[in-house]
Amino acid sequence: MTSEQLYETYKTKMQKIADVKFSSAVLQWDQETYLPPQGAAIRGKQIATLSEMGHSLFTEENTGSILNELFSRDDLDEHQKRNVSLSLVDYERDKKLPPSFVHRLSETTNNSFHAWMQARRENSFSVFEKPLTAIIDLKKQQADLMGYADHPYDALMDEFDKGITVKKLDALFENLRPKLSTLIDKIKTAPQIDDSFLHLHFNKQKQWDLGINLLKAMHYDFDAGRQDISEHPFTIHFNSRDVRITTRIDENNLSNMVWSCIHEGGHALYEQGIPADEYGLPLGECCSLSIHESQSRLWENCIGHGRNFWEFHYPELQKLFKYQLEKVNLNSFYKGINKVRPSLIRTEADEITYHFHVMIRYELEKKLVEGSITTADIPAWWNEHYHKYLGVIVPNDKDGCLQDVHWSHGSFGYFPTYSLGSLYAAQFYSKMLETNSGMEHNIAEGNTIDVWKWLQQHIYQHGRYYNSEELCRQATGESLNTDHFIAYASAKINDIYNL
Amino acid sequence: MTSEQLYETYKTKMQKIADVKFSSAVLQWDQETYLPPQGAAIRGKQIATLSEMGHSLFTEENTGSILNELFSRDDLDEHQKRNVSLSLVDYERDKKLPPSFVHRLSETTNNSFHAWMQARRENSFSVFEKPLTAIIDLKKQQADLMGYADHPYDALMDEFDKGITVKKLDALFENLRPKLSTLIDKIKTAPQIDDSFLHLHFNKQKQWDLGINLLKAMHYDFDAGRQDISEHPFTIHFNSRDVRITTRIDENNLSNMVWSCIHEGGHALYEQGIPADEYGLPLGECCSLSIHESQSRLWENCIGHGRNFWEFHYPELQKLFKYQLEKVNLNSFYKGINKVRPSLIRTEADEITYHFHVMIRYELEKKLVEGSITTADIPAWWNEHYHKYLGVIVPNDKDGCLQDVHWSHGSFGYFPTYSLGSLYAAQFYSKMLETNSGMEHNIAEGNTIDVWKWLQQHIYQHGRYYNSEELCRQATGESLNTDHFIAYASAKINDIYNL
Repeated sequence: MTSEQLYETYKTKMQKIADVKFSSAVLQWDQETYLPPQGAAIRGKQIATLSEMGHSLFTEENTGSILNELFSRDDLDEHQKRNVSLSLVDYERDKKLPPSFVHRLSETTNNSFHAWMQARRENSFSVFEKPLTAIIDLKKQQADLMGYADHPYDALMDEFDKGITVKKLDALFENLRPKLSTLIDKIKTAPQIDDSFLHLHFNKQKQWDLGINLLKAMHYDFDAGRQDISEHPFTIHFNSRDVRITTRIDENNLSNMVWSCIHEGGHALYEQGIPADEYGLPLGECCSLSIHESQSRLWENCIGHGRNFWEFHYPELQKLFKYQLEKVNLNSFYKGINKVRPSLIRTEADEITYHFHVMIRYELEKKLVEGSITTADIPAWWNEHYHKYLGVIVPNDKDGCLQDVHWSHGSFGYFPTYSLGSLYAAQFYSKMLETNSGMEHNIAEGNTIDVWKWLQQHIYQHGRYYNSEELCRQATGESLNTDHFIAYASAKINDIYNL
Repeated sequence: MTSEQLYETYKTKMQKIADVKFSSAVLQWDQETYLPPQGAAIRGKQIATLSEMGHSLFTEENTGSILNELFSRDDLDEHQKRNVSLSLVDYERDKKLPPSFVHRLSETTNNSFHAWMQARRENSFSVFEKPLTAIIDLKKQQADLMGYADHPYDALMDEFDKGITVKKLDALFENLRPKLSTLIDKIKTAPQIDDSFLHLHFNKQKQWDLGINLLKAMHYDFDAGRQDISEHPFTIHFNSRDVRITTRIDENNLSNMVWSCIHEGGHALYEQGIPADEYGLPLGECCSLSIHESQSRLWENCIGHGRNFWEFHYPELQKLFKYQLEKVNLNSFYKGINKVRPSLIRTEADEITYHFHVMIRYELEKKLVEGSITTADIPAWWNEHYHKYLGVIVPNDKDGCLQDVHWSHGSFGYFPTYSLGSLYAAQFYSKMLETNSGMEHNIAEGNTIDVWKWLQQHIYQHGRYYNSEELCRQATGESLNTDHFIAYASAKINDIYNL
């Protein structure tokens, strides 16, 4: 077989596997948006079957033979070579998990998702304890099956950002923590900011319309996506021409919808920008979940919490919610939406204290995976550390250790990507401004096309060609450097708190 | 292996196949309701992959070995035996189609669906001609692969109602046609009925709410289903606890929504009533599409176009649409909704002329499949026969041979089930009334639980245990007998037209 024919065989097989994987994603999307209550039981089994089938197809001997043969050919072009070598890495990794394990993990997480929902409704961690223990056991098994040099948690984080380790993260957080604490200490001495106007009553339909308009202003393509309502906002794609987002609307909290829309919109722009003709192949995938998060954070924080963005959008917001906002000027609005205050809920946290939420989960997950604490210890450990690091008293499990969906999805090792994403975002944004002198001015005039172009050129189009580290260097000329975030955050804090 | 273990192996495998099949159904539902325009291309491939995988899984040697071994065991109970023997019939049938054929058929029909949509938009059959020819070629191949004794069309109808043949249907329609013509001739001499009030303006949201209420009154379970909007109303299920329907709303035509809701509701009640624990097995499936159609027709026509049903619901309808209906009394409403008039569009046809629409399509499909006419001949043949049998002039392709979605789905041999369904419905309804003296009175009081109970007992709970013929005998004591429909239709016509 010529290399061209063999590559075509590889591509056809990968696309078939993608068909199965993304079919499963459609079932998941439906589960979170429109599934009638009694449909849940069988739905979990259907998703588990597809997970197992996709996994079996990819890990069968035949895939390995094709990949190894292609890897030995020297007449592939650069992109083809990259696809093949990345697929080979994935193959070697996935082969370590038996199909039955994948099926069990999928079914266990699905059941556990419903247990988590119930635990939240009943505000009781004990309802979730047993299913969570089952997941943690499977995750430990997974780490052992995958293998690791230093820490079992490394094997799990590898799924979300290749090459991230406990060693690297410990160092990174050690460096970040005191700098963030310094910022927070400074703020404590400054007068408090009023953000009460964000908690008046905001009509649901009007909020929905506003969200759609913000997404359009970001250049989210509604012909290749849609927005729906779900309990927890998320972005999901079935190919780069069908990238969907969800939001939630709280009539007593405008922030919830506005920044969830912008956040998910940032994720979605990334997926819509990945080359459609690489469907099913590594170059048709994102770089890593840290970089994915950088895309949502860049939009949500650097742009969407910036003064320039609202320079243009605030007058229309004031018009929409005349009664609530007519007496709040742009400066007060800008300060209100950036108020720093240690809080209970990660997704509602400000940009500074946010990292403490992530660090607490990171420490906790490490301990659970290494077995130095057990599932039953979670609530007490959680509450103790929220008090220690954020100074807040956790009043109940729902607003404490039950607040995040990730564990019920089996996602251990995911949280660190949230901090990494914010750090990358600040670094990308700083570079973007440095090389586009008119960008801030354009944003203030409602024109974000320069942002989209920069991201398309430096991030989107590359798919998984580079890893996080390489992509960062390619885009900014240096490795991840937390100074950019600290500089960005300090400037904003000094401005807002008149420090 | 004990028979019990072997049966469990069979069941597990069948459920896995069902997971794949119903995952594909979720993708189809999504395609018709929420898919963004650019998502269509890859979606077709995803559905084709799942179709092929489900088919391959079922038709692999291993399934045959399990089934043949189980078939030879004599220690299975009656239900288990029936499941096994029906699965064996399906296996022998499906094995005749190579997986590559199934994949090609799925992809071809998916492309052709989009061509049909475009042809309708452009009101031009020629846009659809080539894709339709490709489908007809595949259908001829399918008939040859399946095999048949007399006519290739028999092999295709077998998919929808086992045992139906051209010979039987020709005889049935020969018998029915003159009786229907006699009824229509009688009506021509009677004064015309006014139904113009159905074509006033009816607010969309109010229509939606009305539809939901009608479905609730039918005992459709919204915890195990939901309703959405699509271009063409349909019912689809992913298991008996997730049975979804769609409707469409035309603000200038109240009938469209009302009877599509009741029709799809009838289909959905059937699926919701099929035993959930037989998921993936033949006894967890419907008897046939003719019987399925009897369930929608019974609700839509016998009940939903009956005086008793509106005795209860009309006052609430009048209250909802005061301006449009306050001067229309129940009797005028009842006459209006049952007006007989030859027309262009099958789905809007009255109960009598409806059968001519089916007979025309039946004749046409036979000719296309046997090759006595070609795709290019369709529009002329169609227009000629609409004039000949219904006396109507077809003004364009959109309202002529492009009106139905079925061919683009690859459904040849499906239309006869529409007439058969109506005939079975009249026979079931007649039996139901005969054995429940209070039923009509209860319907007039808004209580249809007796109807549901009768259908649950005689139809729903049996799944595919009986074939259409056996089920009909079991439920009514005799085989399909068109006299029941003629008696039902004559009585209604005499009443309405004061004949």
